[in-house]
Amino acid sequence: MSKTFEMLRPYLDKSMALQTARSLFEWDDQTTAPFEAAKYTSRVVGILSDEYMKSLINDDVRQIMNKLMEDKEQAELTDTEKAIIKELNKTFEQLESIPPEEYRAFNELAPVANRVWTKAKKDNKYEDFAPYLKEILEYKKKFAGYRVKDNKDPYEILLADYEECFGIKELDIFFEKIKKEIIPLLAKVSAKADAVDKSYNSLKYDIDKQREFCKFLCGYVGFDFNRGVIAESAHPFTMQLHNHDVRITDRYIEDNLESAMFSIIHETGHALYEMNIEDSLTQTPVGGGTSMGMHEAQSRFFENIIGRSKAFWEPIYDKLVGAYPDNLTNITLDHFIKGINKPASSLIRTEADELSYPLHIIIRYETEKMMFMEDADIEKLPEVWNQKYKDYMGISPKDDASGILQDTHWSWGEFGYFPSYAIGSAIASQLYYKMLEVMPLEQYLQEGNLTPIREFLRDSIHKYGATKNTNQLLMEVTGEEFNADYYIKYLKEKYEKLYDIV
Amino acid sequence: MSKTFEMLRPYLDKSMALQTARSLFEWDDQTTAPFEAAKYTSRVVGILSDEYMKSLINDDVRQIMNKLMEDKEQAELTDTEKAIIKELNKTFEQLESIPPEEYRAFNELAPVANRVWTKAKKDNKYEDFAPYLKEILEYKKKFAGYRVKDNKDPYEILLADYEECFGIKELDIFFEKIKKEIIPLLAKVSAKADAVDKSYNSLKYDIDKQREFCKFLCGYVGFDFNRGVIAESAHPFTMQLHNHDVRITDRYIEDNLESAMFSIIHETGHALYEMNIEDSLTQTPVGGGTSMGMHEAQSRFFENIIGRSKAFWEPIYDKLVGAYPDNLTNITLDHFIKGINKPASSLIRTEADELSYPLHIIIRYETEKMMFMEDADIEKLPEVWNQKYKDYMGISPKDDASGILQDTHWSWGEFGYFPSYAIGSAIASQLYYKMLEVMPLEQYLQEGNLTPIREFLRDSIHKYGATKNTNQLLMEVTGEEFNADYYIKYLKEKYEKLYDIV
Repeated sequence: MSKTFEMLRPYLDKSMALQTARSLFEWDDQTTAPFEAAKYTSRVVGILSDEYMKSLINDDVRQIMNKLMEDKEQAELTDTEKAIIKELNKTFEQLESIPPEEYRAFNELAPVANRVWTKAKKDNKYEDFAPYLKEILEYKKKFAGYRVKDNKDPYEILLADYEECFGIKELDIFFEKIKKEIIPLLAKVSAKADAVDKSYNSLKYDIDKQREFCKFLCGYVGFDFNRGVIAESAHPFTMQLHNHDVRITDRYIEDNLESAMFSIIHETGHALYEMNIEDSLTQTPVGGGTSMGMHEAQSRFFENIIGRSKAFWEPIYDKLVGAYPDNLTNITLDHFIKGINKPASSLIRTEADELSYPLHIIIRYETEKMMFMEDADIEKLPEVWNQKYKDYMGISPKDDASGILQDTHWSWGEFGYFPSYAIGSAIASQLYYKMLEVMPLEQYLQEGNLTPIREFLRDSIHKYGATKNTNQLLMEVTGEEFNADYYIKYLKEKYEKLYDIV
Repeated sequence: MSKTFEMLRPYLDKSMALQTARSLFEWDDQTTAPFEAAKYTSRVVGILSDEYMKSLINDDVRQIMNKLMEDKEQAELTDTEKAIIKELNKTFEQLESIPPEEYRAFNELAPVANRVWTKAKKDNKYEDFAPYLKEILEYKKKFAGYRVKDNKDPYEILLADYEECFGIKELDIFFEKIKKEIIPLLAKVSAKADAVDKSYNSLKYDIDKQREFCKFLCGYVGFDFNRGVIAESAHPFTMQLHNHDVRITDRYIEDNLESAMFSIIHETGHALYEMNIEDSLTQTPVGGGTSMGMHEAQSRFFENIIGRSKAFWEPIYDKLVGAYPDNLTNITLDHFIKGINKPASSLIRTEADELSYPLHIIIRYETEKMMFMEDADIEKLPEVWNQKYKDYMGISPKDDASGILQDTHWSWGEFGYFPSYAIGSAIASQLYYKMLEVMPLEQYLQEGNLTPIREFLRDSIHKYGATKNTNQLLMEVTGEEFNADYYIKYLKEKYEKLYDIV
């Protein structure tokens, strides 16, 4: 054990404790806190955030880090220690160059921008949000500008914050492939899928029964209730305090059978990742999932590849019908499977089906590129947005609320985040084809045995936390780096089979 | 505004934020956290506690405090600032003299002692807990010893931590009065009360309906659901993050109608205190209730004096019967009132009725005095305990679990805490007689109008937070300092009337 590294420990511990406290306040705000608490609680969170920043970004830590960069020191470090230092350098790189007063000003602006966005969306008035979007964007451009090296575009910097293995070049290739293959496939599938009657999905489904069935699904997929809890919130999410306390939320809608079910499977995928990270890594800077893309890969693998397959539902569909006999007795398993995989060109990303989902992401990615790289006119973004929906999906938003205002990300300055959703789906497909090689996946699902699937992911991905990056993990488990072809292959095979397309 | 005082602000803010985070972790641990989280979360809480201590007890703060003690500075301070400094001096006085390594050792021992106590109680083996109790007691004696001035006994120091207005002398007088008056009264009442059939209370009461009725009671008493929430935990408690986020818990037992109802009224009393503290005080060192005794006064006032009165139930008893018609249709309001005021010599403090409750407290107070002032033999404490139960209440614990092991307090080193429960009841009575002078209390209750009662407490007690101590508040609102006679008067009048004792 390196003595110099040991000097880092108190700083790491303190920042971990403050970060865990911030997470708990976030969880509490979304699930429990009373309506009027925010004004006073935000003071607490602001102070904890400042303290968190100070606990890591300071001269003492910088000196220890510099010392650790020396060859002699490097030789004494374990792999985990090296990974922690790499992660810490990333945090330094992200925060160190930003003048504290600008950072604070941005952190004060963001919640305001978010409230303005919330109201603008409700009022369907993009023009109210546009000036804030401009200001937020300017901050993010400036902050990324401080960090730019090698003449890269600031957008490149932000993309790497969420997924270090993908830059503009890789994403352009990835998304062009998808556009070329998925847009025509979606058209063909949609023509056939129109015939699937999905009206059963919007009958009344008792909320208590939904809660009960979703809890069953959550445990069925593998959630450990000794190390996690389920709660309710306006938007489903996953949050961990450490690997022994991983929490997910769901939202129950009475006239929508699918919504809560697939949300809980999705969040359980995220949760399994965090629960399976090794004890020796949790509560360190490499104690979480390695990237947004790899995290989404886990949730989308379970939600879509597993959760929307016939084999998954074979052992449990009777139980679902039993919970709602009036609604589902006449819906066969085959009908249900077609239903949960019915593409419906939706204007809303979060309600999109598996096939059209990446097109929603491409539209956001291309729009963000225009904002960063082409100085797009912020006032005119809705026109850009709407045209893209028409071009790629053949539909036009009826208003800004269901168009450019639908996502919360930009109000928080989260530019460069969207691509990781699509990367996640593609990684999930790549892992899926590897699993097909090494195990009788379909048979396991038909037997209701998800243990080998979970163990495969645990041993090849989850347990490493953030000690390895996405491409390292993919190389080790599949023998190649990220390859989008598996995603296209998966979508084609699945939908062509499901809808008899030749 | 004093410039020197302003220099304190960042330290106060930081300690407030850390303290609020600790409270939230405590809340979460009791209501939400998964079973296996504790081991890892306790690291987080340990670090936050250390940081809290460091944020207040340091040379910078000490210097500012010293400067603020100067006459010139004092002249510039507002009353609130003076109260904050007084409170801060108290914290310094409590912590400063304890060597940090001893403080840490004690804080590591206490959770272990608590686990040993939990197991010893379950196994009914006092001898397993005794060595830990000895060790905890030694630490507390030592810590209090560091703080002793004027030859006071260390126990005196600990009593003052919970209620600064009461020392051994005052408590001895208080408790002797109670013993003299209540022991004979209890005997008379018990003889009559045996005839009250209370079997209805242990029928089956649907838990969902209990939840619903308790929520109604909580709002009826005055809880503001925009500024607070109700959750569930093993033992009911109240906890605030600030005056806009006050939380209470309840526990529902299927075959016990009263338990959850009177717990929720009790906790709502605590919550009203915290919710009514002025905005200018919340999130400062004087932003909570002024003492344990005054806090218990609020909860016991609502639970016992209001909540067990006939006038309180007159407008709402039909609603209760309507929730459980099978169980309660044949129970008249008068029968119910006798039931909820039926003394039943219980061995367990937390299940005790209003009349025998102070006797439980006296036994603990006298035992603690023996531990501190007479070096009582810890091994032989059960004999002392059991003899006192026999002498004062005519009953003998059948084992240590329902005897000396029943309370958790000592395992955490909370000596000197128990008296505040009885002080609370006495203060509540004193406030009650004042209210009878200034408002038609019974009529308001019969009309279902609790607003004037809440406003009286808000304006005379609650809003001041900890800027005034118990006796100052009592003097201002009742014209005299603490006076135990009102408590005796209240108990006598109430029980003699209820059970026709002449």
